[in-house]
Amino acid sequence: MTHAAHDHAHEHTHDDHEHHHHEHPSPAGIYLISPSGAVSDPLSIELARQRLGELGFKTAVDRSALAVHERFAGTDKQRLAGIARALKQKHPIVMATRGGYGLSRLLPAIDWAAVADSGKIFIGQSDFTVFSLALLAKTGASSFAGPTAVYDFGAKKMDDLTAALFAESMRRELEVLSFESPDSDAVDERGILWGGNLAMVASLVGTSYMPDIDGGILFLEDIAEHPFRIERMLTQLWHAGILTRQKAIVLGRFTDYRLAAHDNGFDLPSVIAWLRTTVKVPVVTGLPYGHTRVKATLPIGKQVGIATEDGMAHLLLEEHS
Amino acid sequence: MTHAAHDHAHEHTHDDHEHHHHEHPSPAGIYLISPSGAVSDPLSIELARQRLGELGFKTAVDRSALAVHERFAGTDKQRLAGIARALKQKHPIVMATRGGYGLSRLLPAIDWAAVADSGKIFIGQSDFTVFSLALLAKTGASSFAGPTAVYDFGAKKMDDLTAALFAESMRRELEVLSFESPDSDAVDERGILWGGNLAMVASLVGTSYMPDIDGGILFLEDIAEHPFRIERMLTQLWHAGILTRQKAIVLGRFTDYRLAAHDNGFDLPSVIAWLRTTVKVPVVTGLPYGHTRVKATLPIGKQVGIATEDGMAHLLLEEHS
Repeated sequence: MTHAAHDHAHEHTHDDHEHHHHEHPSPAGIYLISPSGAVSDPLSIELARQRLGELGFKTAVDRSALAVHERFAGTDKQRLAGIARALKQKHPIVMATRGGYGLSRLLPAIDWAAVADSGKIFIGQSDFTVFSLALLAKTGASSFAGPTAVYDFGAKKMDDLTAALFAESMRRELEVLSFESPDSDAVDERGILWGGNLAMVASLVGTSYMPDIDGGILFLEDIAEHPFRIERMLTQLWHAGILTRQKAIVLGRFTDYRLAAHDNGFDLPSVIAWLRTTVKVPVVTGLPYGHTRVKATLPIGKQVGIATEDGMAHLLLEEHS
Repeated sequence: MTHAAHDHAHEHTHDDHEHHHHEHPSPAGIYLISPSGAVSDPLSIELARQRLGELGFKTAVDRSALAVHERFAGTDKQRLAGIARALKQKHPIVMATRGGYGLSRLLPAIDWAAVADSGKIFIGQSDFTVFSLALLAKTGASSFAGPTAVYDFGAKKMDDLTAALFAESMRRELEVLSFESPDSDAVDERGILWGGNLAMVASLVGTSYMPDIDGGILFLEDIAEHPFRIERMLTQLWHAGILTRQKAIVLGRFTDYRLAAHDNGFDLPSVIAWLRTTVKVPVVTGLPYGHTRVKATLPIGKQVGIATEDGMAHLLLEEHS
């Protein structure tokens, strides 16, 4: 299927498909773990399970998914045990209940070969970026950036497009993600899709958990980071030689930052303009991904294609001959 | 001279010296540049020059030190020209008017060999950390972290101890900086002193501007960074193999952060406790340095000694046989 995501309209412009979730029940089940921040509202998990059920997914919740220790979903030991249990249970998909903070310091204690060997399909976002990137760096295995139980499926109002993109991605039925991108540079490339939350990507620079990707397609988003911080993080990726080795930089949403009077005209567009003149890599804007209600489900570590044409960008996710 | 810095009391516990600034006029002059954020109040520069004059320092202001472009003290080109002019003028000390943000993206355009060959004594803080570290990484030359014109010498109320420590350091008369450090690990080591603002240090990990220091004494401070961000940055230094190669980690002030209800007991002490159990390197607390009125002037890239005893820490800065 081809899916066109219009950020605000949520409309499906391709009328050659409809969603018949109950007619296409998936045998796939989802196991929920909390490797990062504590779940503050257990009811959001119940709501998420109900919504995922309506999409055709069975769900199970890890026994420490609702644990609380300081700001974390349990102690380091509890969160590591949850990850270990996720590898051994029966459901093929493992979803993080939410992001927050907590995976960074667990990275050395995770058995990455076991994670890859489990064959599980991991999905999360934000803090989960370091899980996906470390898995890719250590084993080459791919995972997904996408919606989480608490913030998406457990939200008061679930976004239908986000749910549809997730379900199609999990069933590997989403071939092309098309989105409005009026000011993108011209690009028609193929490469490994990778990235996620910019702060988390930047936090891995110089460590063994950073994938060494040449000719990749790097996607980035962030929340509540001032444009000067966004630029500083991009500068780190640039100085580390990472940006110039990519075939395209795909920008998702950078939301919820606050400018000050002394910014004096400096804003996110200044950063993107600087990025374009400094790093000679095509920049694609408008990716429907970030700390936003509408978010695509994106593979991290998979070969994809990216092309722009007539104010639209097309991310080729699955190829069927 | 031996100087004991009590953060809040500002008292001098060693009565074997007094400050006679006017009786010991220094021939040293200070050249002021603005490589980072724009100076919002030019009067603060005038006040700083007056105060520095009273300390025995002649001053000169670079012609673009008051330039403004967006949030920066002039365009990249203007700020780079200011740095280049600083190398060629007559005054031996070059002081940043303030921090902010702006040096990161200039790093590849600075002639580091020329900076080192100039023999100038550079001093700044915060954003200036990347200047000091890049200079050290590229040339081995040392510089200073310490007070700046706008925030210290140009402040409505200048801190006397900060001024005294600066003047003594510039004259290389400060032999030992002693400070209260009741919960420090026991340490008696020598090594290269380096570090500065944690966010800026972390922003260089994985780049060629990061000094490769084995057996160093790493000092860190930050402002307005939540403890989870402080921990994440420390984690990056840990994962990059930097922390475990140091002989001591010396913590300055981490100020102006805001906890949230969901931190649920997680705070800076949690981070320091985690650091101690995770990274087996002695941690020394209480360094009078940071985004605080009282701040020491500290060499970056110089061999120093650090020792703790009876709730005090002693940083041996100059050795005279």
